[in-house]
Amino acid sequence: MIAEIITIGDELLIGQVIDTNSAWMAAKLNEQGIGVKQITSISDNREHILITLKEASQRANLILITGGLGPTKDDITKTTLCEYFNTSLVFSETAFEGVSRLFRNRGLPVTDLNRQQAMVPENCKVIPNSNGTAPGMWFEKDEVIYVSMPGVPFEMKAMMENEILPRLAGKSSFSIIHRTILTEGIGESFLAAKIASWENNLPSEIKLAYLPQPGIVRLRLTARGSDKQKLEKELHDSVDALFKLAGEYIFGEGEETLQEVTGQLLKKYGKTLATAESCTGGYLAHLITSISGSSEYFKGSVIAYANEIKERILGVGHVTLATHGAVSEETVRQMAEGIKGKFNVDYAIAISGIAGPTGGISEKPVGTTWIAIASPSGTIAKKYMLGDHRERNIQRSAISALSLLRKKILEDIAK
Amino acid sequence: MIAEIITIGDELLIGQVIDTNSAWMAAKLNEQGIGVKQITSISDNREHILITLKEASQRANLILITGGLGPTKDDITKTTLCEYFNTSLVFSETAFEGVSRLFRNRGLPVTDLNRQQAMVPENCKVIPNSNGTAPGMWFEKDEVIYVSMPGVPFEMKAMMENEILPRLAGKSSFSIIHRTILTEGIGESFLAAKIASWENNLPSEIKLAYLPQPGIVRLRLTARGSDKQKLEKELHDSVDALFKLAGEYIFGEGEETLQEVTGQLLKKYGKTLATAESCTGGYLAHLITSISGSSEYFKGSVIAYANEIKERILGVGHVTLATHGAVSEETVRQMAEGIKGKFNVDYAIAISGIAGPTGGISEKPVGTTWIAIASPSGTIAKKYMLGDHRERNIQRSAISALSLLRKKILEDIAK
Repeated sequence: MIAEIITIGDELLIGQVIDTNSAWMAAKLNEQGIGVKQITSISDNREHILITLKEASQRANLILITGGLGPTKDDITKTTLCEYFNTSLVFSETAFEGVSRLFRNRGLPVTDLNRQQAMVPENCKVIPNSNGTAPGMWFEKDEVIYVSMPGVPFEMKAMMENEILPRLAGKSSFSIIHRTILTEGIGESFLAAKIASWENNLPSEIKLAYLPQPGIVRLRLTARGSDKQKLEKELHDSVDALFKLAGEYIFGEGEETLQEVTGQLLKKYGKTLATAESCTGGYLAHLITSISGSSEYFKGSVIAYANEIKERILGVGHVTLATHGAVSEETVRQMAEGIKGKFNVDYAIAISGIAGPTGGISEKPVGTTWIAIASPSGTIAKKYMLGDHRERNIQRSAISALSLLRKKILEDIAK
Repeated sequence: MIAEIITIGDELLIGQVIDTNSAWMAAKLNEQGIGVKQITSISDNREHILITLKEASQRANLILITGGLGPTKDDITKTTLCEYFNTSLVFSETAFEGVSRLFRNRGLPVTDLNRQQAMVPENCKVIPNSNGTAPGMWFEKDEVIYVSMPGVPFEMKAMMENEILPRLAGKSSFSIIHRTILTEGIGESFLAAKIASWENNLPSEIKLAYLPQPGIVRLRLTARGSDKQKLEKELHDSVDALFKLAGEYIFGEGEETLQEVTGQLLKKYGKTLATAESCTGGYLAHLITSISGSSEYFKGSVIAYANEIKERILGVGHVTLATHGAVSEETVRQMAEGIKGKFNVDYAIAISGIAGPTGGISEKPVGTTWIAIASPSGTIAKKYMLGDHRERNIQRSAISALSLLRKKILEDIAK
């Protein structure tokens, strides 16, 4: 079974609304072993809808359509579907019952516009909409299934979960399994070089994709085939081999984040953390505290944006700042040790860098960042060159700091 | 001129990544009077890319393509474009210079893979990529323009802004003009009621859209027509009328942010700022320091996640915390005054709240947030109820704090 998704609505084509429906539907179809060949967004235009349906039916045998089912004039999907299937609208008791129940529950009267919403093409099966007034519609013609759903995400999602996906279950004997391995501390092209032989020797059923983010490269392995057990075994073995080759860069899998993984380590070993931030200006603390339950290990932070605060609150030496500057190994070491003592924690991170766009000098260009970790086993510091874009510098600094902290904790535990 | 957008990448078709590029590009094209007919997402599949290009070229005369330009094996857009245009790859000095400069700036060696990225189809014009290693490519054939760009959003955006859009300027005689007015401190439906008569009397060429974000409602006015001067005049008059009606809620326009507008005020009047954050965990400081030049007025922050830090570093009374709790008027007032004295600043913001999902009690449910502003004219405090979603609570708390600060500064200036 091959699927296509068609999203209909002017708002998509003028860039007012991002099409989040398609990605969600695609992921759900994948879970059932149904691959998506194409996603097409078009406006509420009769002719274009007709052509797009025709073309999609030549490539796929399952076509999911969202949008254009509202009660107002600009929504024409239903009448266009009638034209496509050469049929006409009829009143559906099932659909009307759904609309009426919804309005009764909200204590609202049923209007003429809502009665019109119970008119559906004669050849469709009505799919109940538990969250809205527009019913879904299921069509079958020439071995192709068409499903038309509302564009409102929560209405579409409930309809997919409760009605469409159960009907599609078992229609595909094919399996698609994804595993995403998260790496940090190595750029995309360097990682690719390091794992080249592994990549070349992947089983033919497995495809690899590199998905870079600031400071992180995700490796997605996708296995496709009919023997699910075999695919799972192959994925398992491939990931094992990857760990042997590049394990030092791997910090997690799937939807995990570095702040989550590092937080779990701190929690597990009963350690506390504080940060002293200059160029990241609180972004690192924000990442850490975006994790629910972080108060169990995170005590707080000093954002020392002004040098005066580095001196007065964190205890960085006046002479250190004057001699080596705010962005220097000496300064971040003192910042890390200062906050560790002041906040009475096990681990402390300090960051000082030149986020840009201004403030760079020839020996310390924009992107120069020093990071220190103070720990029960001593203080380490490392210099990074992170490029010339302010926002990404801040992101990369924070990710690099979490990475350095994680390695230090693992090292300390291993001792 | 009619445009189509083609986004290429397996990650889009399996639902791992939401296609945000298309909406952004569509909005930008609209600004130049270029409408988008279709958006198509397909996988990294040679045959499908070839067919999709062919079909798009029959509907549109501008085709923007993103994705599939990475250095790794899964990326095949470039070789497929060669096939489509019946040409071959040649080494481009311009492209190589771009890649090399980027790597030099980050202190990294140039690999063979990167050298390959400087190979481009012979019939293209190279479009510099200021943020990444894959160059963009501009093709013209049979009156159709094709532009291939990387799929990484920030690389694509910079390329569009700096290179593609300027080259497209003036290609359309139709005008689409947007103005976006930013409001805060009033919910969408209350704002809609307040400006209902204004909205009903807008000229027929102007359409209004409400775009809510946490704590902020943006009003976008879009004027369409061929008489650009007339549209601009109408927009100008409409915005003027809006200011008279709802000026107290308007803080800026277009891409401005509350942190930027507030920062400009501090800078203009030579005032300094510090923050003391509990539930926002550094997010407020992050917003403030995301503005380049914020070091001129922002001295820093204490993130007092643990109560111990509120007491020991910010000087909140032990009895205050024990009697009133961390989320109380008394505590935020002491936090604000504590940081103001300690950091020696003119203005200080303090936030303490229950971000959730846990930690709520019946008198103080999740979403309860106290914010205080300490200023040269005294300290004020306000309570907010912000709902039960952790991430949005953090965002709304920070936006509410900036809003309160901005009003306090304007009040102090007016005195």
